Amino acid sequence: MKAVDIIIKKRDGGVLTREEIEFFVQGLTRGEIPDYQVAAWAMAVYWRGMNADETTALTLAMAHSGQVLDLTPIAPRVLDKHSSGGVGDKTTLVVAPLVASLGLPVGKMSGRGLSFSGGTLDKLESIPGFRADLTTQEFLTQLQRHGIVVSGQTHDLAPADGKLYALRDVTGTVSSLPLIASSIMSKKIAAGAQIIVLDVKVGRGAFMKTQAQATALAELMVRIGHNVGRKVAAVISDMNQPLGNAVGNALEVIEAVETLKERGPADFVEHCLQVATQMVLLADAARDEDDARTQLNAALSDGRALQKFGAWIAGQGGDARVVEDLTLLPRAAIIETVTAPREGFIAAIDAQEVGLTVVDLGGGRVKKGDPIDHAVGVVFHRKVGARVARGEPLFTLHANDRAKGDAAKARLLAAIEFSNAAPAPLPLIHRIVR
Amino acid sequence: MKAVDIIIKKRDGGVLTREEIEFFVQGLTRGEIPDYQVAAWAMAVYWRGMNADETTALTLAMAHSGQVLDLTPIAPRVLDKHSSGGVGDKTTLVVAPLVASLGLPVGKMSGRGLSFSGGTLDKLESIPGFRADLTTQEFLTQLQRHGIVVSGQTHDLAPADGKLYALRDVTGTVSSLPLIASSIMSKKIAAGAQIIVLDVKVGRGAFMKTQAQATALAELMVRIGHNVGRKVAAVISDMNQPLGNAVGNALEVIEAVETLKERGPADFVEHCLQVATQMVLLADAARDEDDARTQLNAALSDGRALQKFGAWIAGQGGDARVVEDLTLLPRAAIIETVTAPREGFIAAIDAQEVGLTVVDLGGGRVKKGDPIDHAVGVVFHRKVGARVARGEPLFTLHANDRAKGDAAKARLLAAIEFSNAAPAPLPLIHRIVR
Repeated sequence: MKAVDIIIKKRDGGVLTREEIEFFVQGLTRGEIPDYQVAAWAMAVYWRGMNADETTALTLAMAHSGQVLDLTPIAPRVLDKHSSGGVGDKTTLVVAPLVASLGLPVGKMSGRGLSFSGGTLDKLESIPGFRADLTTQEFLTQLQRHGIVVSGQTHDLAPADGKLYALRDVTGTVSSLPLIASSIMSKKIAAGAQIIVLDVKVGRGAFMKTQAQATALAELMVRIGHNVGRKVAAVISDMNQPLGNAVGNALEVIEAVETLKERGPADFVEHCLQVATQMVLLADAARDEDDARTQLNAALSDGRALQKFGAWIAGQGGDARVVEDLTLLPRAAIIETVTAPREGFIAAIDAQEVGLTVVDLGGGRVKKGDPIDHAVGVVFHRKVGARVARGEPLFTLHANDRAKGDAAKARLLAAIEFSNAAPAPLPLIHRIVR
Repeated sequence: MKAVDIIIKKRDGGVLTREEIEFFVQGLTRGEIPDYQVAAWAMAVYWRGMNADETTALTLAMAHSGQVLDLTPIAPRVLDKHSSGGVGDKTTLVVAPLVASLGLPVGKMSGRGLSFSGGTLDKLESIPGFRADLTTQEFLTQLQRHGIVVSGQTHDLAPADGKLYALRDVTGTVSSLPLIASSIMSKKIAAGAQIIVLDVKVGRGAFMKTQAQATALAELMVRIGHNVGRKVAAVISDMNQPLGNAVGNALEVIEAVETLKERGPADFVEHCLQVATQMVLLADAARDEDDARTQLNAALSDGRALQKFGAWIAGQGGDARVVEDLTLLPRAAIIETVTAPREGFIAAIDAQEVGLTVVDLGGGRVKKGDPIDHAVGVVFHRKVGARVARGEPLFTLHANDRAKGDAAKARLLAAIEFSNAAPAPLPLIHRIVR
C-alpha cells in the first residue's frame, strides 16, 4: 500500500477501505507518512468527503493510535458530555456534578479555550488550587473516589488526532464534517466513556453556523458512536447569543455555583436540565424525560448537586470553600456597569463578538499556550427579547486594564442590536439527535 | 498575507491575485512556506483549477524564482520546441538541426526519460562523448557558435517548479492542467527562447489520454505564452502507436540520422516537417506553409540539415563520425527479429506498453536517476494499418539479457492487436493551436 495511491483514490472521489484508512493513520502517527502527504490527503477529504463507514474507520484508527482508557473496572458505564464550543458555555460545571450526584459516574476529558470559544479547563482553573491536568492514574482515582472527574487530555490519547489537527489548522482543512466528527469522537472513545451526550452548538457564536451543518455533524457523530458500540445522543443548541449571563472564566464559575444553588439564569438552567436529562436517559436511570427532570430538580433543591460540586473540586486540589465564598475567586480591578443607550428591545447579542471581546480583555487565547486572565469578562443583565429603558443596566464589564476595558465597552455596545418591535424569541434547543 | 488564507481562498473556489500567487511561490522557493502547506494548496488547485490569468501569474512567478536567461545578446529571437512526452519521440534530433540549418537559432533545454516516456538527453547521450549537461556559459557559447544547442536544465532555472513538481509527484497532484501548463511554460520562459512550438501528444502513449485534455492544455500554454509576450504555437499530435519505427535510445539516434538522410519512416518524417513548419512560420521565415516545407525539404535534400546535426554533436563533445558510421553507437548483444504469428491487419500498437517494455529492457527509468542501457529497444517493421502475412517480420528486438529479451518479445506481441479488416487509419496531427 502506498500513501500517494490512497490520496489519489480519495482525490478521485473513491471510498477508502478500513485497511487503507488504518494504513494512513498508523503511517502518520509513526511519522512514516510525511506531513505533506497528510496535508494533501486532508484537502482531498475536505473536497470529496467521507461516508459514515470511512468516518467510523478514521475515528477508530485515531482512537487506537494511542492508549484507549478502560474505565470498566471502575464503573461499567461512565458518562461523558461534550460541547462543540461556544460563548458562555459553562454547562459542564453544572451538569457533571448534577448527574454525578444521582450516582451516575461522570468521567470527562476536556479542552482549553481558543479564539472566541471558552474552555472548561480554563474556567475550572479560576478556582484556587484546582488541578486540570491529571495523570491517567489520578484521573482514574478521582473517578473512583468521587464519581466525577474533569481533566485535560493526556498526551498518549489519540496522538494521530493531535498530529492531524495541528496540520489541518495550517492547511485550511479544519471545517470538514468527517474530519471534525472523527476528531471529536476519537478522543471521546479513547477517553473510555460508554455513554456520551454531545452538545452541538449552532449560530453566530459557534463553529457550526447553520442548522443543516450542525444537524449533519450531530447525526454523523451519533452514527459513529453507535457503530463502535457507544450510547450517544446529541443536543443541537442555539449559540446566537451567549449562554447564560456570564462570559469570562471566574465569572462563569460564579454563575455555575449560583445555578447549583437554583439561582441561575433561566436559559442556562433550562439548557443544563436538557443536557443532563439526555445523560440520565441514556444511562437508563429514568423512565422518561419527566422522571429524569424530577430527579435532577430534586438533586438541585436538596443540595446534593452542590455538595458533589464541592467534593469534585476538593478532590482535584481546588479550594472548595468557593462554594460558600465566591470572593475567593479572582476579581478584576475595574468593574463597570454599562447602561442602555436607548430604549427598545434587545434584538440580538452577537455571541462570537462577545467571545472575541473577552479574548481581547485577556480572558481567552488568540493562539495555543497564551496565558489567561481568569478575572475579566462580562455579565449581561438583559438578554435577547428583553425590553429595556434608556439608562437601565445592560451589562457589567470586568477588566484589569482601563484602555482594554474602554475598547471592550464600545465593542460590546456595538454587538448588541436594538429594535423597536419585540424580536422573535431565540430557541434554546433546536433538536435532539439519537 | 498568510499562506493558510491563500489555501482557503483557493479551496473555496476563489481566484487568486497575482500578489497572492507571487507570495506563495516566493515562500515555497525560500522554504518559508512549508511543504505541507504547498501540498494542501496544490490539492486545492487540482480541485478548483485556475483561470488563464492565475496560471500565467503562476508561470511567471515560477520562471522568475531563479535565473531567467537572456538570449537576446546572441540572437533576438531564439527558437525552442517542447514535446509533452511520448514513445519513440526523437523529433528534436531531426527538427532542431533542420530548423537551425535555415539560419534560425534553436536553443533548447530538455529532459530525461521517466516511465514509458523517453528523454531527448538520454537519446543524445547514446552518442559517444556527447555532453548533455552544459553550464549556462557553455549553453550560450554553443548557441552562439553553432546556432543550435540542446542541454539539460540548469539547477538555478525555475527552482520553484522543481520543488513544486517533486511535491506534486508524491501528493497526487500531477495531472492538473494549470499545474502542468505552468510547469512546462515556466521552464521554457526561464530558458529564454522567444519562439516556442509545443508538441502536445495525445493517446495511449502520452500523458494526455483524450483530445479534449490535450487541446485544453495546448490552448492554455499558448495563451500563457501570448500573455508573457512569447510567440507560441502548439501541434496536437497522435501518440497511440509509437512515433516512427524505433524505440530505444541509440536506435532512435539511428532513425534520426536516417531521417536527416531522407530515409526516415513516413510518419516520423511528416511529423518532423509539421513541427518544423510551425517553427519557421512563427519565426516569420516563410511566406506560408508551402514555402516553409519547400525550404525544409531543400535543407534535407542538399545535406545542410545533416551537416548542422554533425556540427551540433561535435560542438557538444560528441563523436560526429556517427553521421557516417552508425556502428559507433552502442549495439545490443542480442538482436532478434520477430515475425507475425498470424496474417491480417495491424489494428493497434499500444504505445505506452511499448514504452514500458523498453524500460524493462533497461532502456528507460522506473525512477529518477536510474542508469540507462542505451543499446536496447525495438524497431518495428510494420505499423498500424499494414497488412501482414504470417511469418513476415514484425519487429526487431535489441536486448542485452536473454530473459529480459524473451519477456519483452512476449509483451510486445501482446501489445500488437491484429484484425481481419483494415482498421481506420491513425491521424498524425489532430490540430494546430495558435
